[in-house]
Amino acid sequence: MMPPDDLSSTFAALADPTRRAILARLAAGEASVSELARPFDMSLPAISKHLKVLERAGLIVRARAAQRRPCRLEAARLKDVADWIARYRRFWDASLDRLEAYLGELQGKDADHGRDN
Amino acid sequence: MMPPDDLSSTFAALADPTRRAILARLAAGEASVSELARPFDMSLPAISKHLKVLERAGLIVRARAAQRRPCRLEAARLKDVADWIARYRRFWDASLDRLEAYLGELQGKDADHGRDN
Repeated sequence: MMPPDDLSSTFAALADPTRRAILARLAAGEASVSELARPFDMSLPAISKHLKVLERAGLIVRARAAQRRPCRLEAARLKDVADWIARYRRFWDASLDRLEAYLGELQGKDADHGRDN
Repeated sequence: MMPPDDLSSTFAALADPTRRAILARLAAGEASVSELARPFDMSLPAISKHLKVLERAGLIVRARAAQRRPCRLEAARLKDVADWIARYRRFWDASLDRLEAYLGELQGKDADHGRDN
């Protein structure tokens, strides 16, 4: 068995639509817990729990000093995910290449068909 | 509460180093369960459990007909993750910009310092 790692905790934190929606909100600028809770129609403790998961995964940071302790998006872990996924890019690029070749083939056949008539 | 969705189950499937290692192995070509089990020093049932998670998340497909039922990487869901993460690219690009500006500043100071001596 492999030990848990940063990338695993990042993926686990992202495996929830509310947490991804919180990140999307924070992409528009920092926000306090109550500001985050409002659009989600969730209790403060429920939002706080999600924020703790995001904070432990390094996806957000919370200001320590300020009264409202605003949350801020932290990009480094998202970049780790992007770097990981980039290794597989050739697989979906290859699928697109095959689709394009197929569409090209269909268009070629259409052109031939047009010529026959 | 938001209902579970495809992207959440994809992220959950990726939140395990063994499952990510299986995908990395399948990136090199299709493999049977026993071929996958060998390098991981895991039992067939343990590997099968991971494969079921990957299959349910749409990250792999298993041949139905063949005796050895080889597993194959399926790129569409990985592309969904890449598309999701791409929305945040400007955040780490911005961090890199700030880092570059800071390094540039330091080099400027070094140059000034060199001039003073």
